[in-house]
Amino acid sequence: MTQELLTGLIRTIPNYPKEGIMFRDITTLLKDPKGFQVVIKMLQEKYQHAPIDVIAGIEARGFILGSALAFALGKGFVPIRKKGKLPGKTISQAYDLEYGSDVIEIHDDAIDSGANVLLIDDLIATGGTALGAITLIEKIGGKVYETAFVIDLPELGGADKIKNKGHKVFALVAFDGH
Amino acid sequence: MTQELLTGLIRTIPNYPKEGIMFRDITTLLKDPKGFQVVIKMLQEKYQHAPIDVIAGIEARGFILGSALAFALGKGFVPIRKKGKLPGKTISQAYDLEYGSDVIEIHDDAIDSGANVLLIDDLIATGGTALGAITLIEKIGGKVYETAFVIDLPELGGADKIKNKGHKVFALVAFDGH
Repeated sequence: MTQELLTGLIRTIPNYPKEGIMFRDITTLLKDPKGFQVVIKMLQEKYQHAPIDVIAGIEARGFILGSALAFALGKGFVPIRKKGKLPGKTISQAYDLEYGSDVIEIHDDAIDSGANVLLIDDLIATGGTALGAITLIEKIGGKVYETAFVIDLPELGGADKIKNKGHKVFALVAFDGH
Repeated sequence: MTQELLTGLIRTIPNYPKEGIMFRDITTLLKDPKGFQVVIKMLQEKYQHAPIDVIAGIEARGFILGSALAFALGKGFVPIRKKGKLPGKTISQAYDLEYGSDVIEIHDDAIDSGANVLLIDDLIATGGTALGAITLIEKIGGKVYETAFVIDLPELGGADKIKNKGHKVFALVAFDGH
């Protein structure tokens, strides 16, 4: 029933950001007090006994989910940001988009060596950003305990790609299509 | 004592993003489990009995603070984003930067008419972004209950500017200089 609540609160915007894409918009879920509590509490219940040291969230919607979860679990929060946004010394990683590529960064001292990291974003599609973030976490010595998302788009294959690299993937709800 | 804890966990990066600026970096505070809890709990204690309907956070660091606080208070969270990042119908507002200007946006249906909004960002400097965000909230029918920041840079005058417009300003800590 809670999954139905979440699915009902996620708004679909057709043809955004371009023709043929059904954009799953979580802002309608986030602004709903009950919906937002349910999302974070579902993630909190799943991970409250897991051996996680820190939560990493991917800019920008991953910040919204990751920081609330970090607070709920009593953990620290580490932002993974677009290129040029972090003020300290960073490690960079290029990742594939549907067309072209982009770069994400993490502070090189953001994660203690050997720490178990829970990686969070709002949505997993082709998995390019999440794979880039996993590489960044590992480059600075962290271990990815699991990757967690609100929404999976299974047809785009991102979750399978991450599992094929030996990592766990968890998503609260799945949607068909793009 | 808690303010000293926070101040000690905020890292100063000299000459970022440019010569002469002492950048106050909260990522060192956010990744510290105790520091992050203290920040959010101080804000939670301040606002737990306030007549707030929803929390609005400014992209991107305002997302990290605002969403954890929204979860702690049992409220919804509304993102105020850079131009072109929100998928639904938006209202835009230009705001002044130290040099030039930029544009922020909010979904036009993000806030119920007459709702009391707590506006959050990590830092208040010249106040341009926060004033732009206040205008956005009011344009779509919301009322700004208060503006809250982790860090105030009083010498830059942003807090005074917001107070002069009739709004309340709260910050957990203050730093001298830029």
